[in-house]
Amino acid sequence: MNEFELIKQFTAPFGPPPSPRGPGDDCAVLPASPASVVTTDTLQEGVHFLRKTFSLGDIGHKALAVNLSDLASMGATPSWFVCSLSLTSELRAADVRALARGMAPLARAHGIELVGGNVTRALQLSITITAAGTAKRPLLRSGASPGDLLCVSGHLGEAGAGLEVLGRSSVAGPLQGSLVRAQRRPQPQVEWGQLAARYASAAIDVSDGLAQDLGHLCKASGVGAALQSTALPLSDALLAWAGSRAKALKLALSGGEDYVVLAAIPPKRRAAFERALARKALRACFIGEVLAGAKNPRHLVTLDGRPSEQRTGFMHFR
Amino acid sequence: MNEFELIKQFTAPFGPPPSPRGPGDDCAVLPASPASVVTTDTLQEGVHFLRKTFSLGDIGHKALAVNLSDLASMGATPSWFVCSLSLTSELRAADVRALARGMAPLARAHGIELVGGNVTRALQLSITITAAGTAKRPLLRSGASPGDLLCVSGHLGEAGAGLEVLGRSSVAGPLQGSLVRAQRRPQPQVEWGQLAARYASAAIDVSDGLAQDLGHLCKASGVGAALQSTALPLSDALLAWAGSRAKALKLALSGGEDYVVLAAIPPKRRAAFERALARKALRACFIGEVLAGAKNPRHLVTLDGRPSEQRTGFMHFR
Repeated sequence: MNEFELIKQFTAPFGPPPSPRGPGDDCAVLPASPASVVTTDTLQEGVHFLRKTFSLGDIGHKALAVNLSDLASMGATPSWFVCSLSLTSELRAADVRALARGMAPLARAHGIELVGGNVTRALQLSITITAAGTAKRPLLRSGASPGDLLCVSGHLGEAGAGLEVLGRSSVAGPLQGSLVRAQRRPQPQVEWGQLAARYASAAIDVSDGLAQDLGHLCKASGVGAALQSTALPLSDALLAWAGSRAKALKLALSGGEDYVVLAAIPPKRRAAFERALARKALRACFIGEVLAGAKNPRHLVTLDGRPSEQRTGFMHFR
Repeated sequence: MNEFELIKQFTAPFGPPPSPRGPGDDCAVLPASPASVVTTDTLQEGVHFLRKTFSLGDIGHKALAVNLSDLASMGATPSWFVCSLSLTSELRAADVRALARGMAPLARAHGIELVGGNVTRALQLSITITAAGTAKRPLLRSGASPGDLLCVSGHLGEAGAGLEVLGRSSVAGPLQGSLVRAQRRPQPQVEWGQLAARYASAAIDVSDGLAQDLGHLCKASGVGAALQSTALPLSDALLAWAGSRAKALKLALSGGEDYVVLAAIPPKRRAAFERALARKALRACFIGEVLAGAKNPRHLVTLDGRPSEQRTGFMHFR
């Protein structure tokens, strides 16, 4: 199988490219666009997944999902992506197709179009995606003010627990199924982020653990934050796996890979935001409050009034 | 060194980011733009370079150059890029800075802005860049017509010969210096491509060897092509290394990694194109002609009237 056949296998599940926008020239040609946002993220074997616990479909799904989650946190509407595949030598046409079949349904669900890519050989499998979206008013990390209310778009800690489950066995029990699913098939909160963009003052993608990512939002906004542990959304599956509330909280704060949106909402806009979410059968979980910035930058984020260590999230280079 | 320190090391040589456009949020925020083009390319250890024959500066330069070459072949003006680094564990802060110092001068020279990126660990070093540009009339592969004249923006075969030189010794003689430089530090033909966009009917980036890439242009345009071997631009350094004209021709046709632009120019526009190039101290080398499409798709491209094998270029998956 040469690289042109590989590209054909990979692009087939995405449907015919709307040439000249799609793959097939030296560059994809994009239409004129309003202000837009762009992100890039790599899913790397040995760092973000192991071949023995992730199917190729899981890998394809997650590679796009983590990029869509960045677009979600900016309140953007996904528009196009390019996909660079680094493939190991044992992968066959059916494997490349399996990668694409994990990715294509997610692309369709969020209306994002594959417009180009690249393929090369490597000793480890990895996928680098660059994804772009449009946003009239991109939701930055830097807009939060003291008094704003902090909320997240979904459960915390499940993906971190799912990683632990997979570390012990590749076959999860029925309760652990949702944890493993959260790890393998995160669902980017695109619609939630788009609604948040109309009400929030700031937002961030929670990918490295709540404590660390909230710390980034605080630094960018020049504020502090107080979290209430009883308010954090911990699922029954997480509590059951963790065995103790303390362990579940630790996973929720620093397990990483949640891919939920964390937003700061001015109090007077909270009711309208919740009504807008409810109309789409979505909800926000309010978990704390933005405060004035702390003098000690290590104490920007507190949990139940005590300093929360912000550097405990998922760190590739620890 | 954690990932945030790494990012700081890498972005320093590019100068301060024009926030909120630059790195530092979940996505880069881009201004409204006219129709634009986008490309992505990976430079992968073991496939596109070896650590023992490429400095980190060479790797940084080439990773951006191959993407700029794609923009050049569309006649685009470079605007922004994102950069995903996959770093091996032994790399230190100074190494990351060396990568960036190889890349930043090229970015400055072409006015392309680093707006975001990603960093992860891997067993092999690789850099995936996605680069975008603007083009009023993007130069596609598909516009060539019979009678158009084929020309290239620079020497052919030097990078392929440079790869051979490096395979024998990491220290090149004075004549071989230009070959090694063509392999390690290709110069994307951005200005040439922008001028070509005003006169050419079609163009392609010559990255996999002239024969193969001209074959792609022919297929996309539904035409054939006749090359004249005496017209191909072969440098003295290439001829000296090759030892015979036949070997030099083989490298020029299928050595790969030339990163020159191949354009099809309607005859009545040739003189004006050459004048426009001359005003910028550039020139085109005319190497053949576009013909009606051949019945046998393997005979799309001929050299001195004989069928030229198009599938002899650089193929990662051969």
